[in-house]
Amino acid sequence: MHLSRRLIAEMFGTFWLVLGGCGSAVLAANFAGPVHGLGIGFVGVSLAFGLTVLTMAFAIGHISGCHLNPAVSVGLTVAGRFPARDLVPYIAAQVLGAVIGAFVLALIATGKPGFDLVASGFATNGYGEHSPGHYAMGAAFVCEVVMTAFFLFVILGATDQRAPAGFAPIAIGLCLTLIHLISIPVTNTSVNPARSTGPALFVGGEAISQLWLFWVAPIVGAVIAGIVYPAVAGRREAVAAVAAREKA
Amino acid sequence: MHLSRRLIAEMFGTFWLVLGGCGSAVLAANFAGPVHGLGIGFVGVSLAFGLTVLTMAFAIGHISGCHLNPAVSVGLTVAGRFPARDLVPYIAAQVLGAVIGAFVLALIATGKPGFDLVASGFATNGYGEHSPGHYAMGAAFVCEVVMTAFFLFVILGATDQRAPAGFAPIAIGLCLTLIHLISIPVTNTSVNPARSTGPALFVGGEAISQLWLFWVAPIVGAVIAGIVYPAVAGRREAVAAVAAREKA
Amino acid sequence: MHLSRRLIAEMFGTFWLVLGGCGSAVLAANFAGPVHGLGIGFVGVSLAFGLTVLTMAFAIGHISGCHLNPAVSVGLTVAGRFPARDLVPYIAAQVLGAVIGAFVLALIATGKPGFDLVASGFATNGYGEHSPGHYAMGAAFVCEVVMTAFFLFVILGATDQRAPAGFAPIAIGLCLTLIHLISIPVTNTSVNPARSTGPALFVGGEAISQLWLFWVAPIVGAVIAGIVYPAVAGRREAVAAVAAREKA
Amino acid sequence: MHLSRRLIAEMFGTFWLVLGGCGSAVLAANFAGPVHGLGIGFVGVSLAFGLTVLTMAFAIGHISGCHLNPAVSVGLTVAGRFPARDLVPYIAAQVLGAVIGAFVLALIATGKPGFDLVASGFATNGYGEHSPGHYAMGAAFVCEVVMTAFFLFVILGATDQRAPAGFAPIAIGLCLTLIHLISIPVTNTSVNPARSTGPALFVGGEAISQLWLFWVAPIVGAVIAGIVYPAVAGRREAVAAVAAREKA
Repeated sequence: MHLSRRLIAEMFGTFWLVLGGCGSAVLAANFAGPVHGLGIGFVGVSLAFGLTVLTMAFAIGHISGCHLNPAVSVGLTVAGRFPARDLVPYIAAQVLGAVIGAFVLALIATGKPGFDLVASGFATNGYGEHSPGHYAMGAAFVCEVVMTAFFLFVILGATDQRAPAGFAPIAIGLCLTLIHLISIPVTNTSVNPARSTGPALFVGGEAISQLWLFWVAPIVGAVIAGIVYPAVAGRREAVAAVAAREKA
Repeated sequence: MHLSRRLIAEMFGTFWLVLGGCGSAVLAANFAGPVHGLGIGFVGVSLAFGLTVLTMAFAIGHISGCHLNPAVSVGLTVAGRFPARDLVPYIAAQVLGAVIGAFVLALIATGKPGFDLVASGFATNGYGEHSPGHYAMGAAFVCEVVMTAFFLFVILGATDQRAPAGFAPIAIGLCLTLIHLISIPVTNTSVNPARSTGPALFVGGEAISQLWLFWVAPIVGAVIAGIVYPAVAGRREAVAAVAAREKA
Repeated sequence: MHLSRRLIAEMFGTFWLVLGGCGSAVLAANFAGPVHGLGIGFVGVSLAFGLTVLTMAFAIGHISGCHLNPAVSVGLTVAGRFPARDLVPYIAAQVLGAVIGAFVLALIATGKPGFDLVASGFATNGYGEHSPGHYAMGAAFVCEVVMTAFFLFVILGATDQRAPAGFAPIAIGLCLTLIHLISIPVTNTSVNPARSTGPALFVGGEAISQLWLFWVAPIVGAVIAGIVYPAVAGRREAVAAVAAREKA
Repeated sequence: MHLSRRLIAEMFGTFWLVLGGCGSAVLAANFAGPVHGLGIGFVGVSLAFGLTVLTMAFAIGHISGCHLNPAVSVGLTVAGRFPARDLVPYIAAQVLGAVIGAFVLALIATGKPGFDLVASGFATNGYGEHSPGHYAMGAAFVCEVVMTAFFLFVILGATDQRAPAGFAPIAIGLCLTLIHLISIPVTNTSVNPARSTGPALFVGGEAISQLWLFWVAPIVGAVIAGIVYPAVAGRREAVAAVAAREKA
């Protein structure tokens, strides 16, 4: 597959992740109802983020591998599963897709009378005063590192050639759902620098000044998993899997 | 498979989509409880719509392809995956199934003392004053176009011969769940002209006068995806996939 | 597989369906919390019923076929997929499992100080005054017939030899979840005479006098689907599938 | 695979089960919102526990078998599916992983101003005064025995060589979700002595003095299933399956 097609697929996929995941949070999390709240809450937002990845992994996994996330691309490179020469173009396509996704979400969300994009938070990530539960920076950093490390661990394991074939999109998508079920209160959940960057550009202020953490911590976590998984699972088999793919 | 059998399957399937998806909204979304709300809210309605498609795709996918949606049939035709000569009969069967589904839902729903079908909204789609969150027509149009385009993108990708076999019903059904998690507040979520038409006929008024948008926007989105997916994924492989199916 | 083993499997499975499905409703649906309700509501109960069938279909599908439901056994018989000579023993095992499941649920539920089994409703099915939403008998009957017919339709389709192999437990389990998302307010959802009978024996009164509907309506629905599915899907192929199974 | 690698995998996996399952309960179950509760409630916690197992089973199933639970290891041993000589090291690795998981959860949770770990309960299991719904010890014991027995029954069935290959992580993970949907109100749901031990060490008091029940009851349940499943499903086939694995 030509690199240009793979980059377009990554851009589309990350667009969908931001529009769908952040969109569910901005548009639907808090909806009132006549009898009780009808909004989808953190459970619905968690499902939505996971399903953006699950659906795209089935739709474009065979085109680009469906990373949709700079931390995933870095982790796969460290684990020897992704060529380093494609890393920068992939990350650029992912960030571009995330920004366009946030733009289209802004278009839709501002169609509601009285909607204030900045006051809404627009699904940006944050710590301290900008954490949903006011979690301190240290806790936020630990949380993002550990969550991303296990996300990569699941990605590397579920796409290992010894794992049952075809199921990886389910394992990986539902892992992102799980991560959100745990950590939305802590950082609004990033584990994905592109996803953090898209909405932050439209909100500005602290969303931008805290953005560094949502690049550094997920990438640190991904690097750890990229080293640990092959060591635990057997480097020889991992190398064999890469070789088999190179041929294909 | 004879066309008549495929049309009956499409009619049954779209009946189930409307009875199940709209039915969960009308009957169960708002249910009160002794301690807190027991109703299923937008999360439950989103699950229900997705599961109507997931279950039918496993049940009748091998009979009719399980479109259940005029926009899906149009998008597949544009992508070269569905013969244009079957388009009108498929759409007719889908609309007929949707109308019968809404009729049976009305039968059940009016079994509750004091139920007022028109006042309930009966799960119709709408914009402006008739959008659940009062979203303007422009935002509603953009939302329906984008959601349907990605729905078709996932359908085309997950049924691509390079995607893992057998999983498409899960990817497609859960994509419809995802789309509802995002966009119920905006338009009550259509992405399906047949689904919009069924309940609208029983409610009348604005539900009918706004119905045009839920035919035009989903079909525009589907046409876009029907052009874009083959271009990104490689037209040659798509053609090969169609050829293989024609033989089968 | 000897009939005795298959009957034990059906008994265990229906025990799990009643303990898990009705148990989630009795124990967890209404739980209060310090900030907001923590109870699982109708969404959680719907998931629980579906997951009892999904888990058991993977666990005992290869032993007994995992019907867990007299209406399912009847529908499969009508469709020519199950030998009529095994029908009565299967139904007896299912009812026995349901009664023991309700008994163990009563053991656990009464461990809560102040729990009143009869006043709780104990997850029995009902219409009119005993419908959660006070739906009239006619609406309840129509609802149970249609829901069971589509349940069987999905079972027959997902286990058709032309459907993707291995996925039937997911399709069937999540179909039961969907059916509950729609119809708990109407009848507390039966579609399964054994599931209705188990709790009713412990509650008595109207739960017993209304029990007839939850035998008649599901079986009517199942018979309809057992006739319609083979007619739509092609009787020849269905017969071929049965022949292949008889050999195996 | 060397035992040391399998033990590291079990430690990582049980870490994830405790951090993810207990973490969702401690961090996200009760979150307030501007319009209605945004917290994930028991439904979200149930999903989270199940998804820790589903994701890890795809990630490390091919390394260690992904038990993550002393009761599972015991049950598999009784059923003749796991060598008794590995039982003690597996259980030690699981408990160690659970303790580290609880430690990292404490690190994150205490990052919230005003969080009181002991007062929060920290997702410990309990009965009587320490049961979420104040269920008596007898009911708690019965509940843990039955839930664990059916958990093992599903594990043994879904990994039986006659069950469809590759789906076991879905069946087993969603079975744990189901078990939580039923029994969180009764004991906060253990069915896993390691999961109970991790948080209890950080809370002390009754969480420790009641810990015996969450070792004894799950192991009793697992032993029962380890005896019953092979008897129902046919011991000959089970033995053949083990033999096939020993060779592989």
